Amino acid sequence: MISTKEAYIERISKKKQKLYVNGKKVENFVEHPNIKPIIDSIGLTYDLAFKEEYRDIMVTNSQFISEPINRFLHIYTEKEDLIKRLKLARLLSSKLATCNYRCVGCDILNALYITTYEMDELLKTNYHERLKNYITYVQKNDLAVSGALTDVRGDRSKSPHEQDDIYLKITQTKEDGIVVKGAKICQSGALVVDETVVMPTIALNQQDKAYAVSFAIETGCENMIYVLQNNAYESKKRETPDWESGNPYGDRGTFLVIFDNVFVPWDRVFMCEEYQYASVLVSNFSNIHRYVGSGCKAGFADTIIGASKLMAEYNGTANASHITDKIVETVKGSEACYACGLAAGYEGVKTKSGCWLPNALYANISKTLGLPALNNAIVNLADITGGVCVTAPSKNDLENPEIGQYIEHYLKGSDVATTRDRMKLIKFVEYWVAGPHLGGAVHGGGSPSTPNIFIKRLADIDEKKNLVKELLNIS
Amino acid sequence: MISTKEAYIERISKKKQKLYVNGKKVENFVEHPNIKPIIDSIGLTYDLAFKEEYRDIMVTNSQFISEPINRFLHIYTEKEDLIKRLKLARLLSSKLATCNYRCVGCDILNALYITTYEMDELLKTNYHERLKNYITYVQKNDLAVSGALTDVRGDRSKSPHEQDDIYLKITQTKEDGIVVKGAKICQSGALVVDETVVMPTIALNQQDKAYAVSFAIETGCENMIYVLQNNAYESKKRETPDWESGNPYGDRGTFLVIFDNVFVPWDRVFMCEEYQYASVLVSNFSNIHRYVGSGCKAGFADTIIGASKLMAEYNGTANASHITDKIVETVKGSEACYACGLAAGYEGVKTKSGCWLPNALYANISKTLGLPALNNAIVNLADITGGVCVTAPSKNDLENPEIGQYIEHYLKGSDVATTRDRMKLIKFVEYWVAGPHLGGAVHGGGSPSTPNIFIKRLADIDEKKNLVKELLNIS
Amino acid sequence: MISTKEAYIERISKKKQKLYVNGKKVENFVEHPNIKPIIDSIGLTYDLAFKEEYRDIMVTNSQFISEPINRFLHIYTEKEDLIKRLKLARLLSSKLATCNYRCVGCDILNALYITTYEMDELLKTNYHERLKNYITYVQKNDLAVSGALTDVRGDRSKSPHEQDDIYLKITQTKEDGIVVKGAKICQSGALVVDETVVMPTIALNQQDKAYAVSFAIETGCENMIYVLQNNAYESKKRETPDWESGNPYGDRGTFLVIFDNVFVPWDRVFMCEEYQYASVLVSNFSNIHRYVGSGCKAGFADTIIGASKLMAEYNGTANASHITDKIVETVKGSEACYACGLAAGYEGVKTKSGCWLPNALYANISKTLGLPALNNAIVNLADITGGVCVTAPSKNDLENPEIGQYIEHYLKGSDVATTRDRMKLIKFVEYWVAGPHLGGAVHGGGSPSTPNIFIKRLADIDEKKNLVKELLNIS
Amino acid sequence: MISTKEAYIERISKKKQKLYVNGKKVENFVEHPNIKPIIDSIGLTYDLAFKEEYRDIMVTNSQFISEPINRFLHIYTEKEDLIKRLKLARLLSSKLATCNYRCVGCDILNALYITTYEMDELLKTNYHERLKNYITYVQKNDLAVSGALTDVRGDRSKSPHEQDDIYLKITQTKEDGIVVKGAKICQSGALVVDETVVMPTIALNQQDKAYAVSFAIETGCENMIYVLQNNAYESKKRETPDWESGNPYGDRGTFLVIFDNVFVPWDRVFMCEEYQYASVLVSNFSNIHRYVGSGCKAGFADTIIGASKLMAEYNGTANASHITDKIVETVKGSEACYACGLAAGYEGVKTKSGCWLPNALYANISKTLGLPALNNAIVNLADITGGVCVTAPSKNDLENPEIGQYIEHYLKGSDVATTRDRMKLIKFVEYWVAGPHLGGAVHGGGSPSTPNIFIKRLADIDEKKNLVKELLNIS
Repeated sequence: MISTKEAYIERISKKKQKLYVNGKKVENFVEHPNIKPIIDSIGLTYDLAFKEEYRDIMVTNSQFISEPINRFLHIYTEKEDLIKRLKLARLLSSKLATCNYRCVGCDILNALYITTYEMDELLKTNYHERLKNYITYVQKNDLAVSGALTDVRGDRSKSPHEQDDIYLKITQTKEDGIVVKGAKICQSGALVVDETVVMPTIALNQQDKAYAVSFAIETGCENMIYVLQNNAYESKKRETPDWESGNPYGDRGTFLVIFDNVFVPWDRVFMCEEYQYASVLVSNFSNIHRYVGSGCKAGFADTIIGASKLMAEYNGTANASHITDKIVETVKGSEACYACGLAAGYEGVKTKSGCWLPNALYANISKTLGLPALNNAIVNLADITGGVCVTAPSKNDLENPEIGQYIEHYLKGSDVATTRDRMKLIKFVEYWVAGPHLGGAVHGGGSPSTPNIFIKRLADIDEKKNLVKELLNIS
Repeated sequence: MISTKEAYIERISKKKQKLYVNGKKVENFVEHPNIKPIIDSIGLTYDLAFKEEYRDIMVTNSQFISEPINRFLHIYTEKEDLIKRLKLARLLSSKLATCNYRCVGCDILNALYITTYEMDELLKTNYHERLKNYITYVQKNDLAVSGALTDVRGDRSKSPHEQDDIYLKITQTKEDGIVVKGAKICQSGALVVDETVVMPTIALNQQDKAYAVSFAIETGCENMIYVLQNNAYESKKRETPDWESGNPYGDRGTFLVIFDNVFVPWDRVFMCEEYQYASVLVSNFSNIHRYVGSGCKAGFADTIIGASKLMAEYNGTANASHITDKIVETVKGSEACYACGLAAGYEGVKTKSGCWLPNALYANISKTLGLPALNNAIVNLADITGGVCVTAPSKNDLENPEIGQYIEHYLKGSDVATTRDRMKLIKFVEYWVAGPHLGGAVHGGGSPSTPNIFIKRLADIDEKKNLVKELLNIS
Repeated sequence: MISTKEAYIERISKKKQKLYVNGKKVENFVEHPNIKPIIDSIGLTYDLAFKEEYRDIMVTNSQFISEPINRFLHIYTEKEDLIKRLKLARLLSSKLATCNYRCVGCDILNALYITTYEMDELLKTNYHERLKNYITYVQKNDLAVSGALTDVRGDRSKSPHEQDDIYLKITQTKEDGIVVKGAKICQSGALVVDETVVMPTIALNQQDKAYAVSFAIETGCENMIYVLQNNAYESKKRETPDWESGNPYGDRGTFLVIFDNVFVPWDRVFMCEEYQYASVLVSNFSNIHRYVGSGCKAGFADTIIGASKLMAEYNGTANASHITDKIVETVKGSEACYACGLAAGYEGVKTKSGCWLPNALYANISKTLGLPALNNAIVNLADITGGVCVTAPSKNDLENPEIGQYIEHYLKGSDVATTRDRMKLIKFVEYWVAGPHLGGAVHGGGSPSTPNIFIKRLADIDEKKNLVKELLNIS
Repeated sequence: MISTKEAYIERISKKKQKLYVNGKKVENFVEHPNIKPIIDSIGLTYDLAFKEEYRDIMVTNSQFISEPINRFLHIYTEKEDLIKRLKLARLLSSKLATCNYRCVGCDILNALYITTYEMDELLKTNYHERLKNYITYVQKNDLAVSGALTDVRGDRSKSPHEQDDIYLKITQTKEDGIVVKGAKICQSGALVVDETVVMPTIALNQQDKAYAVSFAIETGCENMIYVLQNNAYESKKRETPDWESGNPYGDRGTFLVIFDNVFVPWDRVFMCEEYQYASVLVSNFSNIHRYVGSGCKAGFADTIIGASKLMAEYNGTANASHITDKIVETVKGSEACYACGLAAGYEGVKTKSGCWLPNALYANISKTLGLPALNNAIVNLADITGGVCVTAPSKNDLENPEIGQYIEHYLKGSDVATTRDRMKLIKFVEYWVAGPHLGGAVHGGGSPSTPNIFIKRLADIDEKKNLVKELLNIS
């Protein structure tokens, strides 16, 4: 089924959730200035599915329910699915200039699909079947599914079992399900999705088996607590939720999600103590998510490139060669990252489960290209805009009866734009330059060092050694 | 005279200033959460002058009043002054992790000192004497002097006279002085200094001579209007002025400064229509300010390096080689920038006025090293900290009676720190990663492209060509 | 037909060519130490076609002669052809660690195929048919076809017609054909191929129409003169053609090719004064050749990575983390370039002619990734090897009866290799570090600045601008 | 005394040395095409001392013999000496575009001066006095002193004593001196200097004490064997010693130097088993040599910048903005490296011995800037020149009566130069782009990874940590 934004909001509005924002409990979260933009972002993933021009990317047919579904709930049955998945990520990022909140859920479902198949085959468990039932359920109702992955980690030199209940763990195994306790941090969109799938964040060993757990919950079920991230951008959104805050869809809204002894029935449990599969699941997920991330970054860069060009026109510098050079540089960084993603998709492989997995080498390399590309894009945008990107007066100054005329006069750029439009754009630039994105770019898809470990493993270095031995006739 | 922080605040408090913050007029600016940190930052420039360990850097003897003065008001009479000036910049930046607000004023005074000497010599004007009297005045009272430089620029493809009163200009010349009209943007600290010196922002030609103007005003004199920059960090400081906002001294507070027909008496005018000296003055200022900027950036980097190391300890990762590598990388970038500054100082030249000027080639190169160094430092800091640097809950969440215990438990790192201290540090990292600094680093001391123009001019490329001709015996 | 290396050498040996090497006329070029490695390299393109493991990449079916042909003579009839073409380039580069000499010819044939189709359609010429006949001919005989493209350019600030017969031009149009005069520089392998196809090197306007010429000649036909490049590596190959010179296949052997009034019959002429198609042809060729270049660079990098790992083992440093980091860095650079190539292939488009063309944006971006990747790979290899890569004694020193024992003893590394093998590898490293490759990497596929022009044109920047306008509700 | 080039050559000519070049024993080395350029290079260090314009840099007064000496033999008695030493390095590199061969000797003498003072103070040895006598001797005769440092290292995972006589060691201690055995590799200029000072290459422990040895020998004394490096450039210099080989002074000529049981009298021994001072000596030397290296690299870059500009004029591209940008980029890289060197000099410290030592932090950072700067300079030069830098025909082709006219015509650039001059310049570019320099730049002053170890140690990271604690009021 293809649901609507309205239906999604209605479902969400009914939920009774325990939410804290900057130390205060929030009752009507749907209209809260920090939460509404998240809902609108997710809303767009529903809206676009009804636009003819995006239908090919947004909608596909389910192999499980044999009807059209939103691609964010799809399991990749052919290589082309991988490519469309990438284009989906880019499309949303370029429309939102922020998170769409449905990527991680989608990526976990696919990673679980591949991993549970292998688990069942070897361990004679029946997680795969359960998962298929679960996927069928969310597809039938077109539910928004988010993912919870990143454990708070305490002392990183210690493994989970060496610490005092820091990582999310199974505290009880009952006849009808399990009880879990712990916290996941920086879960994007957690509060306002229908469903959350949970998985471990690192490889685990036998002593850590209580932490080897994957499952799905209905968002806002009993004993869940949500604490919104608090950064400067959230303050601004609370104070001036209008265009002063730059992006109508806001920044990436993440939550500290506390599982204070939450019960999960068995039909929603997809891993339970199979510690030896934690690293496989993490690796499959990382592979998919780093892949998708290249589309996400390219979509963000699209808005940065567009803003760069528009600002150059507003400033009267669009024809300066050093300005054009910088825009081309941004394009190169962004498209190199995306091209590497495309290569990962096109060179993807079909797993035993039938689900396609992107080429892991290129997926990991694309992640290493994304950060410098986005970082450089942001620096170039700040360069093109001028210092005003962080020092401009506000919309309220512009609208103030005493000083508005001065702002109107002095903040004007070239004649192609009104002061108001230029200020809107300036605030959008501030959103990129002085917002929380760089932090997201650094750590989204894992810290910058982790792909190197995968790349070393995947690069067939010894085979290349043999090429040289053969060439030089060395024994 | 060496003034105290208390005396400085008393002077400032008496001023009647027209200040707008986010669209609202502010009456008691001294206690305003966005303004107080600026006052405290400037306050530290007074306080440190009384600390024995910093006296050699903070205090020197005036050649004009023959008594100890704060180095921020000194004209460089010997090469060593240049070096100490650089160390002064680094010291303050490393103590404040934000602007000290007295650099630009100091740099303009020195640039004017050199330039007015040349003007007088050729044009038989008497600006130099006036300036000396003015310097004597501010030194005698240890006044905080800021500088106003950056014109709003409208359409950058047009020169000042081709536009409609955008750049600051002389609107009237009277017997006792001049009247000026226009706006300067992003003047750091403008509101809360004793004095402001004003100069042009670009080279000017004859048609632009009304814009060739330099002078000093008492801050807050008649017809001046100040509008505080509005960015997300300012919102946060207003909402949570405590440690939640990361840096007790706040971010760099800049103002849109509107000169709505302001009268300036002749003894405070240092350039009046001598358009041919605008570029000389700008060039001298840029040279000095880019030089000083290398110390400023290195001081900021000191706090980033310190935060990186501390966070690694708090996260339990201080011994990981990839973490150490990143810190060393940050050190290298920062110290290369600073070393280039040092070279500019040590290779400085004595101008005809007697004032020393840093080597322009190295001063400009140091500026080009500063941006990538600081940018990389910030990315490395985000990397070492983790995504939590932009997604952590708040101080208010920690102190909330219902959820405080969870925050306390789950935000804890290794045993070397309390959760509170780790969160303080996290918020300081947020300040760097998701604050307005990158914008400042891009444009402080001029946009990234301008030093290249100077470098090309200064590099003696044809002399090097002759080296090759001689070597190869080419005619 | 699939020819053999032996047949190829026999054909070549019969040619009577005017060849000069370092100022001397060479009669028996087949055994000349600078030429033999080129013949061996081309020979491998024939040999590998008979190896079962490479057949899928080396051999395909011709749409013209309906029999198996060497892929170097194939016109791309489906997308998969593009991908296999890329893999072909990588395979050969990784086997040869130098040029295979058949890429440019292949790429010109495909570019001509697309361009002549368009020309004929608009201009009612019949070049396309001629070209098909020509392709049929070379396929039937499995001829080695090289390409001549790069004109000597004299004063680059002047166009061809403003100079004194510098660019290759048509000097006479006769009933049976045309006469051409001029010189092409750095044509790889020119002397020892069966055929050479010639095309312009830059966009041309009407005044330059005499330079708008494309045709094929039998290599070594009347009035052709070949002058071998002379660089240090060629000297070394002449002095010590054995393993002392590092790569048995030598460096990329290019020639200055002089057309001293050469007659070309009409059935071998594919462009004759249609100046308006020069830029189209150049653009199509560049697109294809930059695409293929990403495979070529990745293949070279494979041998550099292999040599890096092997040398680390020989030096006893294979487990040092900073060594491993460098190898991973090389892998990342190389694979990013290759992935970008793959993306260009997979996102290729079918032209009207039926021939597939790689995506131009990604093809151009891959070129910009190739140079820094290869450069960095070489620097890392030098780093891992040690200064000995340019300072080692020679094979002749090792074999000298008086000092051989010392060399044997002191040049030994770890126990995993003999001194002889280590020295072979050292000489291979010298080949990369101190050979002419960097020059080739800089200019192969055009100078580093040209792709930027294409990228700017291809990047749909205004569309991205509209994304932002829509997002911010800007008119 | 200030000696002349003629006197130097006369001294050298008398030496009876065992030299092997590419497997052959060489008798008259003075005129050998690979050796003569080395002699000419060293000769210039004598010649320039007599040129008035360079006297201030080339000549100073000795504190030991109270007369003018060549600065290459000076012990730094004041800070200004450090700066002039740096300028000396740059001057020679910019005149020679290759090694001057006297740097390492000079740097070892200064490092020994500092280290032997400390050794004597603690160990009550009398090395310092001996060294002063030795320095007095070389100063009185203005001898060319080279340094031998880099041991062949065998298996780098093993220390010297774990291997089979690979590193240079003391094999016998006699009444009148010691006997040493081993080999030093890549000693620049070793054969044709008057004297060689020898020191260890790495830190040593007690088991390695036989390898802790430093001494001076008269070059070419009994049981010494010299084997010239063999790389492609040496082949070319042998084949075409004229301008075809690019640089009249040749490339950096290094030797494998074999000490086959060489006797050293006590008055020339400066360390003998004091293993605990090996690392101190190495560290002092590295510090000085990396410092000096920044001047050396900048001098090389001067010739590259000059060649870039000249070639742009010859090619008719001197006004293209992307060409100018590249030259400016090269200037920036080079001057940043040199500025960092200057900072190291100006921030130098006086050691107990009275000799000045550059600031170690900046010296090490300058080394890390030198490699990318020189590498980038070379790539930019190749870019500006065109592929012709590695593919041009030869001087002999130009002078060949049959084809000379073609070369003359087709290799011509713009009218500002003759073909001959353009080809001379092309060959000079080839020398940089395809010569052994990159290898030298990578490993000169130690491998690229070693400075990082020093930087980490020198950077006061914990002090910076305390800055942050104080700022945030963290305990």
